[in-house]
Amino acid sequence: MTVTMDLNADLGESFGPWRMGDDESLLGIVTSANLACGFHAGDPQTMIRTAAMARDAGVSIGAHISYADLRGFGRRPMPVTHDELHADVVYQLGAALGVTASVAVELTHAKPHGALYNVIATDRNQARTVARAIASVRPGLPVYGLAGSVFLDEARAAGLVPVPEAFADRAYETDGTLRPRSLVGAVLTDPDEIAARVVRLARRGEILAHEGSPIALAARTVCVHGETAHATAIARAIRSALEAAGVDLRAIEH
Amino acid sequence: MTVTMDLNADLGESFGPWRMGDDESLLGIVTSANLACGFHAGDPQTMIRTAAMARDAGVSIGAHISYADLRGFGRRPMPVTHDELHADVVYQLGAALGVTASVAVELTHAKPHGALYNVIATDRNQARTVARAIASVRPGLPVYGLAGSVFLDEARAAGLVPVPEAFADRAYETDGTLRPRSLVGAVLTDPDEIAARVVRLARRGEILAHEGSPIALAARTVCVHGETAHATAIARAIRSALEAAGVDLRAIEH
Amino acid sequence: MTVTMDLNADLGESFGPWRMGDDESLLGIVTSANLACGFHAGDPQTMIRTAAMARDAGVSIGAHISYADLRGFGRRPMPVTHDELHADVVYQLGAALGVTASVAVELTHAKPHGALYNVIATDRNQARTVARAIASVRPGLPVYGLAGSVFLDEARAAGLVPVPEAFADRAYETDGTLRPRSLVGAVLTDPDEIAARVVRLARRGEILAHEGSPIALAARTVCVHGETAHATAIARAIRSALEAAGVDLRAIEH
Amino acid sequence: MTVTMDLNADLGESFGPWRMGDDESLLGIVTSANLACGFHAGDPQTMIRTAAMARDAGVSIGAHISYADLRGFGRRPMPVTHDELHADVVYQLGAALGVTASVAVELTHAKPHGALYNVIATDRNQARTVARAIASVRPGLPVYGLAGSVFLDEARAAGLVPVPEAFADRAYETDGTLRPRSLVGAVLTDPDEIAARVVRLARRGEILAHEGSPIALAARTVCVHGETAHATAIARAIRSALEAAGVDLRAIEH
Repeated sequence: MTVTMDLNADLGESFGPWRMGDDESLLGIVTSANLACGFHAGDPQTMIRTAAMARDAGVSIGAHISYADLRGFGRRPMPVTHDELHADVVYQLGAALGVTASVAVELTHAKPHGALYNVIATDRNQARTVARAIASVRPGLPVYGLAGSVFLDEARAAGLVPVPEAFADRAYETDGTLRPRSLVGAVLTDPDEIAARVVRLARRGEILAHEGSPIALAARTVCVHGETAHATAIARAIRSALEAAGVDLRAIEH
Repeated sequence: MTVTMDLNADLGESFGPWRMGDDESLLGIVTSANLACGFHAGDPQTMIRTAAMARDAGVSIGAHISYADLRGFGRRPMPVTHDELHADVVYQLGAALGVTASVAVELTHAKPHGALYNVIATDRNQARTVARAIASVRPGLPVYGLAGSVFLDEARAAGLVPVPEAFADRAYETDGTLRPRSLVGAVLTDPDEIAARVVRLARRGEILAHEGSPIALAARTVCVHGETAHATAIARAIRSALEAAGVDLRAIEH
Repeated sequence: MTVTMDLNADLGESFGPWRMGDDESLLGIVTSANLACGFHAGDPQTMIRTAAMARDAGVSIGAHISYADLRGFGRRPMPVTHDELHADVVYQLGAALGVTASVAVELTHAKPHGALYNVIATDRNQARTVARAIASVRPGLPVYGLAGSVFLDEARAAGLVPVPEAFADRAYETDGTLRPRSLVGAVLTDPDEIAARVVRLARRGEILAHEGSPIALAARTVCVHGETAHATAIARAIRSALEAAGVDLRAIEH
Repeated sequence: MTVTMDLNADLGESFGPWRMGDDESLLGIVTSANLACGFHAGDPQTMIRTAAMARDAGVSIGAHISYADLRGFGRRPMPVTHDELHADVVYQLGAALGVTASVAVELTHAKPHGALYNVIATDRNQARTVARAIASVRPGLPVYGLAGSVFLDEARAAGLVPVPEAFADRAYETDGTLRPRSLVGAVLTDPDEIAARVVRLARRGEILAHEGSPIALAARTVCVHGETAHATAIARAIRSALEAAGVDLRAIEH
């Protein structure tokens, strides 16, 4: 039996005249891309250009959905009502569907971004709002979320396909939660160590917790980054290690 | 043989805390609604609320697509590039598709708004860009445009269904163009006269030109307004007169 | 000795094509106007038009400063950092100074709006940030704030002139705080009762608390509204009653 | 007699999470900075941070005023009305005044940006609108504009101080206009050649036209760039050459 793993990255985070990220390099590494939809980054032209590049690279495209917070890059927990959050998710998902249709590919998934991703890992009300909003537009769509999060529970309940995600460069606590960024050792930086962790995750379904012992983590996709040259190097090391270990790199099927 | 006519109006033009238009009254009069998509008016919550109201009223919903110009309400001819206009159309159409899907109805048409509507009546390059952008997302979608405009030509060439539109309260020149607003008599205000004109248009396919003689006008939809109580009264008079004349009021089939 | 009182109202809350409020009527009633600065409402044209109208009506003009939240009309407590809030206050105050200079009047005061007003009534950190930001641009400027709020303390500490404000149509608890809107009786609606309360406030420095007994309230300005015809009628009743009681209606001197 | 020259550059063109330009390097080279005011780039935090850096570097700060066009970076000629342009100029200039006051420096000048700069070089109506708007807020302020432009005429007529500007890396036609970018040789790239041209401009008040002969050009400020490492190298070469030639580098006095 072949082990499979999806590698995903956030793309299309430029805005108007402002560039961000190294999309071209990442498209040679990952199997799926999360496309910013204009609410934390991205604009219609950037979306179409990025989607066309991803299509040409054979990379799957999902909607990267955010609180409406361009200035804060979607990293601030916004005081949204249920109706507002519902509407913002529907609008962004629709826009992403328009863009992918226009470049003749299917939208393969959705992934909440930044503060929204973190909030709905534990806030059941917002998690349910997001899940149902997605399902109202695209029943059965795969959605990426933190492995073990309430969002994935709510996604399943809403008829979506929950896809548990792991973070290649983040330390985990023994209980399977991400080690808070405020603590030492929260972020890993050694490409070889990170690559070895991801191979272990793919092959054995486990990851080494911060204190040293392995914990079970059933991730189907791993998030990598490309903000810096070092981040891209880590992503490349992960891909190489997975390929060397015989892991089948491919996007989530939907 | 029964004569049919679609009555359309622009809806969902509120923005955040700001109200505009009398959507509830218009939904009791028209057969199709043009839904603002956030680029000249509307916001995601307004879009969903309006779409749900239209659905409940049995009114068809189309995407009202504009230049990105919230402050100018889409009434300014913007200096857009081909790529930018293409992307903006795709994005808005996608957002409208998301919204209609979320309230469980089909999107029935698209209609360019304001300055964009006017520009592509004669500018073939922009007309082609808009038509192809729509077709890239929704092949075969009906699109409303000024009867006789190059946009309708380009829409047909792009595989869309061109739907010629007439304006109930506007005077026409002998050559079938709209009498410019800067000239006297450009805008009609008498409900009975307007209603009689629309009946003639529906029954005979002709309208009285400004100088008095009838000209052929093959419109399949008529645009009415609701900004003022008087505008709503005109819309109501049109509907009553068409019903009294045995015209079958119904949305464009797609 | 003549008792004086300032009557203030929020003006210039239109945005682009969207109208809000009855500025013309209010300018015949109040002695000072709080001018929206583009972050919760208002746009540069609306600001200048409103400032010119206020000048012509002899009404003082202050900057109505808000969280950056156009869509939420500044009514949502935003997750701002110190630096962001500082910068937003400086920017808005500067814009208002530009506008008043351009219509040849002095800016007389600043007043935080909506959620920001409420948050800094009790949040000392944000109160200090706002007070110091204002003082960095306009040392010694009068600022309106809830009577008894920490914002007024911080304003004084920052070298500004604290101006305690009362709300004509709101009930007060025995401890001098506003009765929460969620409780019955929080908002008063009878023009005569409201006018009598304001006269008592001006003449005796006290207001009847919700449970019936008078409490001391040293307000120098009273906020009135104009969103509805009824609100404007209340404002008019207050002005008439104050004039009849011999209260000198005039803006805060700076 | 000592020859003096001002070197200016556009700064503070980041926006929210997006970085642009090498402000730190430029602040070690130029004598005056044009601060983006949020309409084509910049946000309140970026403005304050940039203004404080300029102050600490002893660099003068002016307002870089643009059409409202964040997405197009102010490079598109926008279809503005007189009132809208007037208001936008007033608003931005006010915001810049707030920012400079908050960091305890004087605003020394204003400079129109991008498409606005180009349009008002020849469009007298818009030039007059911009000049009068600036004068309505800051009578007598120095304003930078293309040497020989109608904007400088209108600025003088409005009581402002016109400061003719030259572009270090642009070729000039024999009539003193900039060689259009669409023609070969419009942009110069050799640091030594550019530096020599600027020295000639400062010392003799003339510049070599594209076809080879010197023409008179009475510039008091020269614009340099920092978008790329090469641009910054050119700026540095200009400064070194001017210093070596005994030119006194200093900001315009106001």
